[in-house]
Amino acid sequence: MNLQELLDQSKQQINQYLHDLLQQRPAVAPRLNEAMHYALVLGGKRVRPFLTQAVGQLCGAHPDVVLRAAAAVECIHAYSLIHDDLPAMDDDQLRRGHPTCHVAFDEATAILAGDALQTLAFELLSSPQLAVDPSRQLAMIHVLAKASGDHGMCGGQALDLAATGATHLAEPELARIHEHKTGDLIRAAVVLGVLAGGDDAQPFRQHFDDFAYYLGLAFQVRDDMLDVIGNTIALGKTKGSDAEANKSTYVTLLGLDGAQQRLQEFHQKALHALTKISYNTELLAAFADHLLNRDH
Amino acid sequence: MNLQELLDQSKQQINQYLHDLLQQRPAVAPRLNEAMHYALVLGGKRVRPFLTQAVGQLCGAHPDVVLRAAAAVECIHAYSLIHDDLPAMDDDQLRRGHPTCHVAFDEATAILAGDALQTLAFELLSSPQLAVDPSRQLAMIHVLAKASGDHGMCGGQALDLAATGATHLAEPELARIHEHKTGDLIRAAVVLGVLAGGDDAQPFRQHFDDFAYYLGLAFQVRDDMLDVIGNTIALGKTKGSDAEANKSTYVTLLGLDGAQQRLQEFHQKALHALTKISYNTELLAAFADHLLNRDH
Repeated sequence: MNLQELLDQSKQQINQYLHDLLQQRPAVAPRLNEAMHYALVLGGKRVRPFLTQAVGQLCGAHPDVVLRAAAAVECIHAYSLIHDDLPAMDDDQLRRGHPTCHVAFDEATAILAGDALQTLAFELLSSPQLAVDPSRQLAMIHVLAKASGDHGMCGGQALDLAATGATHLAEPELARIHEHKTGDLIRAAVVLGVLAGGDDAQPFRQHFDDFAYYLGLAFQVRDDMLDVIGNTIALGKTKGSDAEANKSTYVTLLGLDGAQQRLQEFHQKALHALTKISYNTELLAAFADHLLNRDH
Repeated sequence: MNLQELLDQSKQQINQYLHDLLQQRPAVAPRLNEAMHYALVLGGKRVRPFLTQAVGQLCGAHPDVVLRAAAAVECIHAYSLIHDDLPAMDDDQLRRGHPTCHVAFDEATAILAGDALQTLAFELLSSPQLAVDPSRQLAMIHVLAKASGDHGMCGGQALDLAATGATHLAEPELARIHEHKTGDLIRAAVVLGVLAGGDDAQPFRQHFDDFAYYLGLAFQVRDDMLDVIGNTIALGKTKGSDAEANKSTYVTLLGLDGAQQRLQEFHQKALHALTKISYNTELLAAFADHLLNRDH
């Protein structure tokens, strides 16, 4: 299979898994579960689940564990998008070309759906039926928690909110926002794949983590560039919305050419980290190329 | 020590633990951590941590594990209060006599502080340093997750929001709301104490759980009664606020006398569950009496 076929297969698997997960849960409050389902299966590139699956497979993990871990990461990602889109946060009406959760439902339901999706991530990972050593399973939960909370994604989102409107943000501050806001969860997606794997894979954890770190930074630079050069329909959000919201981005800071250069530096560092891993990491390298050259 | 001294000691311990926890964490976004700290140490009766500690001690659990589990439950409780108080939810300005988190900070920070406190609960419980078997530790996480999400507390809150303004709510529907909205976390607080304990304690898990189930229901009935007969200053919230919000309560459904009768029934069932446990459960019985006769 070529990369595109593998990407399609991974996306189809995770979409089916997430759909079944929500469909098969008896709902206490049906509207809440509809909102969770809406936000979870709305689509998206499924970058994180692909990474967990690709890394997990390289590291010899059981496919069921990997799929569950990938779903857990995606639950965290989906919850963060619901909350980020709220009127008190970014106040977005459109996400991936569809009405955001609080528009499609209501604000209270959206807040609760985000809350419950976060919980679901930890419910999934703490299942007693997982084909992985309990200590390793605990480590997976711990990594995901640290990547998601005040030291991770939530911390990054708080920094981002504080920085909106600050016109003279320096690059280290911008990097710090993105390291946490988007980077930490991408790293967790990769590290969960390693942790789900065999003992032989564990010594490579740091290199996989480094790969994910630079991939996450590069991904964000590309995102900032696409906000300026991208196509509104393909992006599923309004082009130039960052500039309109007076957000600091790699493009406002470095210009388009400077951002492109930084993207290449991060990309090279990501690829360099892969060279330290004694598995065949061609697929991960091809995925990085694909992700960082994307036009939406 | 008498009950009051034990309650004070437990409260002091958990307050200190939560304070230290937040103080000692290096903050990515200081304002976010201030909001988490604010909401977490604002006070409250600390009913859930006391239950985890009292049950954990009975079941022979390590005090460090119990304190950490109690703190995790309190993180979930605190996050739920922050989100419940938001303008899109109950829109409360006052909590325990202090401005609610979104009033003291801002709405975006309050949403994130709630999110990060939920994550913190799972970070605490998944720590690799806990003096408890990893499988048992996973079970603790799983119980807390199931009690907090769409099948538990979030589901109950969604039902509660859907029922606001519904004047003809029947008692089973009201009970269902409270079973999930407040009951599930009280049960989790108790069951975590059991799971942190020795193998000998595990056969009593269902009886402890039954105790917590009826205690939770009785607690809610008392809460509904206090909203009508209580003192605004002692309660720290506006008396009659449920009636004003047109909420269905045990009092609007059964009247004060009927609610008092139901309270006694639930109380007796809670005490009956304790008789099935071959430990000295006098303290838990005394605590139930104390909690269900409270005037604030």
